[in-house]
Amino acid sequence: MGYTDQDWKAINTIRTLAQLGPPRRAHGICNAVGLAMAQAHTAATFNKDGFNLVDNYTYCFLGDGCLMEGVSGEASSLAGHLQLGNLIAVWDDNHISIDGDTNVAFTEDVIKRYEAYGWHVVSVSDGDNDLEGIEAAFKKCQEVKDKPSLIALRTTIGFGSKQQGTHGVHGSPLKADDIKQLKEKFGFNPDESFAVPQEVYDAYNKHAAEGAAAEEEWNKLFAKYGEKFSAEHADLARRLTGDLPEGWEKSLPVYTPADAAVASRKLSEIVLSKVEGVLPELVGGSADLTGSNLTRWKEAVDFQAPQTKLGDYAGRYIRYGVREHAMGAIMNGLAAYGTILPYGGTFLNFVSYAAGAIRLSALSQVRAIWVATHDSIGLGEDGPTHQPIETLAHFRALPNCMVWRPADGNETSAAYYVALTSKHTPSIIALSRQNLPQLEGSVLEKSVKGGYVLHEEEGADVTLVSTGSEVCICVDAVKELKEKHNIKARVVSIPCFEVFDAQSKEYRLSVLPDGIPSLSVEVMSTMGWERYTHEQFGLNRFGASGAYKDVYKKFEFTPEGIAKRAVATIDFWKDVPNIRSPINRAFQQLI
Amino acid sequence: MGYTDQDWKAINTIRTLAQLGPPRRAHGICNAVGLAMAQAHTAATFNKDGFNLVDNYTYCFLGDGCLMEGVSGEASSLAGHLQLGNLIAVWDDNHISIDGDTNVAFTEDVIKRYEAYGWHVVSVSDGDNDLEGIEAAFKKCQEVKDKPSLIALRTTIGFGSKQQGTHGVHGSPLKADDIKQLKEKFGFNPDESFAVPQEVYDAYNKHAAEGAAAEEEWNKLFAKYGEKFSAEHADLARRLTGDLPEGWEKSLPVYTPADAAVASRKLSEIVLSKVEGVLPELVGGSADLTGSNLTRWKEAVDFQAPQTKLGDYAGRYIRYGVREHAMGAIMNGLAAYGTILPYGGTFLNFVSYAAGAIRLSALSQVRAIWVATHDSIGLGEDGPTHQPIETLAHFRALPNCMVWRPADGNETSAAYYVALTSKHTPSIIALSRQNLPQLEGSVLEKSVKGGYVLHEEEGADVTLVSTGSEVCICVDAVKELKEKHNIKARVVSIPCFEVFDAQSKEYRLSVLPDGIPSLSVEVMSTMGWERYTHEQFGLNRFGASGAYKDVYKKFEFTPEGIAKRAVATIDFWKDVPNIRSPINRAFQQLI
Repeated sequence: MGYTDQDWKAINTIRTLAQLGPPRRAHGICNAVGLAMAQAHTAATFNKDGFNLVDNYTYCFLGDGCLMEGVSGEASSLAGHLQLGNLIAVWDDNHISIDGDTNVAFTEDVIKRYEAYGWHVVSVSDGDNDLEGIEAAFKKCQEVKDKPSLIALRTTIGFGSKQQGTHGVHGSPLKADDIKQLKEKFGFNPDESFAVPQEVYDAYNKHAAEGAAAEEEWNKLFAKYGEKFSAEHADLARRLTGDLPEGWEKSLPVYTPADAAVASRKLSEIVLSKVEGVLPELVGGSADLTGSNLTRWKEAVDFQAPQTKLGDYAGRYIRYGVREHAMGAIMNGLAAYGTILPYGGTFLNFVSYAAGAIRLSALSQVRAIWVATHDSIGLGEDGPTHQPIETLAHFRALPNCMVWRPADGNETSAAYYVALTSKHTPSIIALSRQNLPQLEGSVLEKSVKGGYVLHEEEGADVTLVSTGSEVCICVDAVKELKEKHNIKARVVSIPCFEVFDAQSKEYRLSVLPDGIPSLSVEVMSTMGWERYTHEQFGLNRFGASGAYKDVYKKFEFTPEGIAKRAVATIDFWKDVPNIRSPINRAFQQLI
Repeated sequence: MGYTDQDWKAINTIRTLAQLGPPRRAHGICNAVGLAMAQAHTAATFNKDGFNLVDNYTYCFLGDGCLMEGVSGEASSLAGHLQLGNLIAVWDDNHISIDGDTNVAFTEDVIKRYEAYGWHVVSVSDGDNDLEGIEAAFKKCQEVKDKPSLIALRTTIGFGSKQQGTHGVHGSPLKADDIKQLKEKFGFNPDESFAVPQEVYDAYNKHAAEGAAAEEEWNKLFAKYGEKFSAEHADLARRLTGDLPEGWEKSLPVYTPADAAVASRKLSEIVLSKVEGVLPELVGGSADLTGSNLTRWKEAVDFQAPQTKLGDYAGRYIRYGVREHAMGAIMNGLAAYGTILPYGGTFLNFVSYAAGAIRLSALSQVRAIWVATHDSIGLGEDGPTHQPIETLAHFRALPNCMVWRPADGNETSAAYYVALTSKHTPSIIALSRQNLPQLEGSVLEKSVKGGYVLHEEEGADVTLVSTGSEVCICVDAVKELKEKHNIKARVVSIPCFEVFDAQSKEYRLSVLPDGIPSLSVEVMSTMGWERYTHEQFGLNRFGASGAYKDVYKKFEFTPEGIAKRAVATIDFWKDVPNIRSPINRAFQQLI
């Protein structure tokens, strides 16, 4: 310990330059839990005697607002359960949020709450000045190996400004005269703006040199590791690039129409079971719905603190608890660490609970996969509280997020293929509870384009366009239309809007051509389907509770119900000569 | 105390009939916090010496899964802060969730956590059999007036079944032989199904009679209250019907184009300030963004425990803290109590954090109003983390949820008019941070139809269709098109899809007629706009950080940028004779 004038100058520079940052919400602490879990897992997987390759701590700052948000509680509870001794969070306890003093809304005992979560907590009463106390707190936390740590750091917001200790410095920049007195107080030239003194550069450059030396040392250790453990070395080096091992895709299952009808959640389980061996970076879990999501391959080991005997840190299956929002934010942290490809399961309807986290996955370009089962009214008896209506539209509208709704086994393999190989995009794979037949015409090579012609028909009168569990009903409707109405129908499957939209206009027009009226069929909100079809058959109301076949029948999602609407579509559009495909628009590229 | 055989028979009947219910997630406890807040507010507002009109407790059951979810933590922290002594929650502490023993994911000290929130906690160790202990716990909790109470009730899941104490009884019905032995054990005829013994009917009927007597007594008290406090009596009686007082709408502000340009969040503040006097049931708040959402009228009193001196329970302004999800669930409870019309503010982008609660508002037909400010890239410097892209599409796809995006003062009044008078539908009102001019042609009477012609033009070449802050740019684009391109354009404003969709086809076709190509303009996802227009100008990517004018310019949301796309629209569609309006479809009624 012992701090020089140079150290203080550096601190005051930061204080002066960075009086405030944009609000970050509570995702930092949740991402940090993910990073710490990734560290524990990677260390347990790769470290060897004499090769402590992976041994970092994860540090995180959080404010009063972060602590108010439920998602931080979810992640913190899980971190305590997992006994993550490598995680050290610092609570910037300044008693101020945007509405003013935290006493208007937040008077709980945070320290006691974190102790209840199983965290180790230390307090520093003068976080503005007591550098020795802060350093001692960090050292103490580093020594606690079986609990995450929280340092409760009592600070003054806007320290040094005229408005210090008030919410006046939370959301708006300091006034000119305040900046002036602040700079004078901290020993800077008040007439210079955004100026960093040379001695501060020097202080930081010293640390940069230390960092470079440490990196070099690690690189040497890693090279030596490679001599002794070549397979592990190659695996870790590959994982850090984000690439998958060559030929991994040969493990993806392939189906023919002779194969049995299977629920797509089960098809997803088969994919996970087939690829987990070739993709050791695949680490997943479920928000307390393992048996329903089918996210756990046989013989998987749980990711748990080894002391618990329920698993160990090398385990690849995470028991998230009923914590979807934290699961999403933790997956962002797991992916950011660089050695893990995370997936997480819940019911499609509850993916919305994690909207904030998935938005950040998309914005941060994170590869994370949601195994979203029970994807429609087809889930049956649980009823409208569990039956998604708006969910696909929601996430289809989110930029850089792939929403897949595969119709059968080959489309499920395609969804995973694209999700696993898209390094910079999260995916939501919507999967059925009910059984789906293996379709004639579905192949991975076409499905990966996001949309394709499943069933072609010379001189067709209408195109039926669908996704997921309704595709097979459309296929049956083709027969119904032919036999009962002498109508020829083609069938198009669009398992992923985002990927289909990215294809050339020429390709998309070959799938949805001019001259033929079209009808979309999907048992949820029709919002967005007008982009592809002239008419939409969907469900713009909440669902109903009952056996899935009864519920489909109630809403007429049957071959007969579809045929009826196909006939109405043809009838309505017969007067329009050379009907244009809806995708034939002036603006093809979605910005 | 002292329980009869009849009591036990009733308990065993419930045990036998209701071995399980559908999962309810954590919203029950949050709704309960809202109900308890509503009780405290209504009591403080209406009770008088000798007239303890409103004095109920709110009871709530919650399970381990509910406790894992962050939203329950948010609501419980607030309940502790608010010192809600009228709230008693019972934790069904059975150590089981769907994934099995809670020790796989949930090992925190719940009792300590609730004490940290400022709750009073009592434990009952044998919740299966100790009726005296349970009754004593309730009595103790009722006596604690300044803290919410949690009864930690240790129970056995599936008590009496062969699988008791395991997750085997969580998600699936009991097998026939198990039901048989259970019925025998509890003294029922194992061959009868769904049979309720007469003595159980008798036990319940006794309570029904007690309830009827209590109701009659209350009605008498309320009538006497009316003799002494006629205004309060009339107010409370009216509130309970859900109707607003006659003539209240005269308080809504009316604007002319001569009035100043004002941000629509400010227009919202003006509405709240004008109507709060005539709508005493209006009780609102913000998720720690009061100064940004402008949700607090001048002289509002905070809803706070009176002991704190920060407000009192009669106060109508709620400091929710950074807790959007709980705010949404609490609003559902506030509305359900019957005496309050709740509203809550946050940034539009963070409304998504409450998706789970808003879905339940829509499904439960709850009148709750979201004041969703900073509604686009127009919020400027906070950048993409705060700029909604997918949010409007998300909630427009949700059944029974109105999403309003008013363009000026009259449309803002219209949005509030419909939101406040729609007894069974939640509303999200998206409001700008930046100033908007008062438009020529906007009137409340047209706006309440959800969509209308703002600017008509004989022999128009194109229709520009827009919402909110882009409508005034479309109006400027009309000039640009006329002067630079000799093109005649009409302008349609659709402040609310849901309400517009509910109008007659005839009306909708008068707004969006056949024969004219159309272009939508909205600075976010184009998802859903294909329902109304031939071409879409939107933002299917994340936004950018900068001054709002610079950001709009970057993405060409300017009169010139719109005019350019209008020209391209006309050009692309000129070969199509008698172009059909996109709303002219076979299926008009969205199911």
